[in-house]
Amino acid sequence: MAASSHTVKISRVASGQQATQSDSVAVEEPLEIRLAFSTPDGRATRSISITMRTPGDDRELAAGFLFGESVVHQPDDIASIELCGPPAPDSGNHNVVRVELAPDVEVDLNRLQRHFYTTSSCGVCGKTSLDALRVIGVEPLGGTALFGIATMTGIPDKLRTAQTTFDETGGLHAATAFDAAGDLVVTMEDVGRHNAVDKVIGSLFLQGRLPGAELGLMVSGRASFELTQKALVAGMPLLAAVSAPSSLAVQLASEFNLTLVGFLRGDTFNIYSGQHRITE
Amino acid sequence: MAASSHTVKISRVASGQQATQSDSVAVEEPLEIRLAFSTPDGRATRSISITMRTPGDDRELAAGFLFGESVVHQPDDIASIELCGPPAPDSGNHNVVRVELAPDVEVDLNRLQRHFYTTSSCGVCGKTSLDALRVIGVEPLGGTALFGIATMTGIPDKLRTAQTTFDETGGLHAATAFDAAGDLVVTMEDVGRHNAVDKVIGSLFLQGRLPGAELGLMVSGRASFELTQKALVAGMPLLAAVSAPSSLAVQLASEFNLTLVGFLRGDTFNIYSGQHRITE
Repeated sequence: MAASSHTVKISRVASGQQATQSDSVAVEEPLEIRLAFSTPDGRATRSISITMRTPGDDRELAAGFLFGESVVHQPDDIASIELCGPPAPDSGNHNVVRVELAPDVEVDLNRLQRHFYTTSSCGVCGKTSLDALRVIGVEPLGGTALFGIATMTGIPDKLRTAQTTFDETGGLHAATAFDAAGDLVVTMEDVGRHNAVDKVIGSLFLQGRLPGAELGLMVSGRASFELTQKALVAGMPLLAAVSAPSSLAVQLASEFNLTLVGFLRGDTFNIYSGQHRITE
Repeated sequence: MAASSHTVKISRVASGQQATQSDSVAVEEPLEIRLAFSTPDGRATRSISITMRTPGDDRELAAGFLFGESVVHQPDDIASIELCGPPAPDSGNHNVVRVELAPDVEVDLNRLQRHFYTTSSCGVCGKTSLDALRVIGVEPLGGTALFGIATMTGIPDKLRTAQTTFDETGGLHAATAFDAAGDLVVTMEDVGRHNAVDKVIGSLFLQGRLPGAELGLMVSGRASFELTQKALVAGMPLLAAVSAPSSLAVQLASEFNLTLVGFLRGDTFNIYSGQHRITE
């Protein structure tokens, strides 16, 4: 079990006075994702990503990353996922995850490198975000899922209760998938909000639960373009954030019929798009 | 002047009731950084980065990014910075910034691509973070700068007052450089915390004020490995965050003698490293 927090000695300043005490900080370490796959000349292994993450649920993080990048489409595309590499000098964590793809899965490494460029360059070259995402095969969301107001306002407290490390460190983002009954299906934490979301989506993917047409996704912090894109690719019809969405998140959500909720706190929230899925 | 917020129509839910109203959201759009430089065969232009940012202070963002990546070292290394590209279809913003380097500046594009890999892969390959940063020429901080407790606790209110867009949108991160007297030297906002920091550092760089041996850097949100690295490269001896630091931020700060402050709120804060620069 990887440590997700550790203890440091700090000086606490309050009302002009200093005192030495212990404090917990969230662990941040690099994770390298290595992909093993078939080529016309046999098997090849490539390092495809290094991300700064909080150790724990690294298999889910790798699976979610690969799903989001359209490298894998169904659980059977992955033959195995294992942690490897030498133990990190400070923590002893294994910070390399090796994903072995099934023999028949084709990988376009050029496409992988182009992915972020393609989708985030909308508005640079004059192509709209709608056009750019259609290029990678994302379609507007349909489905019949509905979420009651009371369901929505109940999620933040449940998420806080489920967050095991946050109370210790105050430093971790969280993401959760929830159903229309308000039950949390998967909850994950990470120093990076996008990693917490990749862990949730990777867990759903490995369980064979994607597309998540009946599930909402809630994140701590803000809703950015990137997180909105991840919800869309996972086929989840609702994204809710504790804080504000960005302009491009609102635009994307509107164009792809995603319900986008912001400032979900106490018994209040704002609906930026897809109001038809919120019921009284 | 680029718009950093815009108005959308939302449904506001409170106490089970919905009402339609207007809301401001922070603008998020891609910025492409193009670099023009000398090669043995003449001048070349390459696209080196696309980042999702809030429009405004794009020249400073580009300069700060290039300084952080060790592409430029002094203001004279940059011959010109100009916004170009077609206006984005939705906003009319120009989302390409072209940086023309001086004729004698050498660019190692391979090194540029390796940079993040080198520094963030510490702990993957077993090399410590200290070793990895020494590879790119970062040295432990010296200097005689001191910051009083009252100076520190006064910064958050000044930063909030200086943030023009946050009050409208609730969705922007902020970063500021301040001196020992507690005066804010440069304040910037962005949907991305790392962009706000790049804008601050880029502004100081273009003014010829780096290394910032007498300046502290304060950021909204958390202090990550990446932000700690940016403060170190800019030679700023103090980094303060509204929220928690990560384990790797604490480790880096300790190793490089950077004063790291977290949870700077009201009249309290925590000192994780470099306590000797905080005076009563």
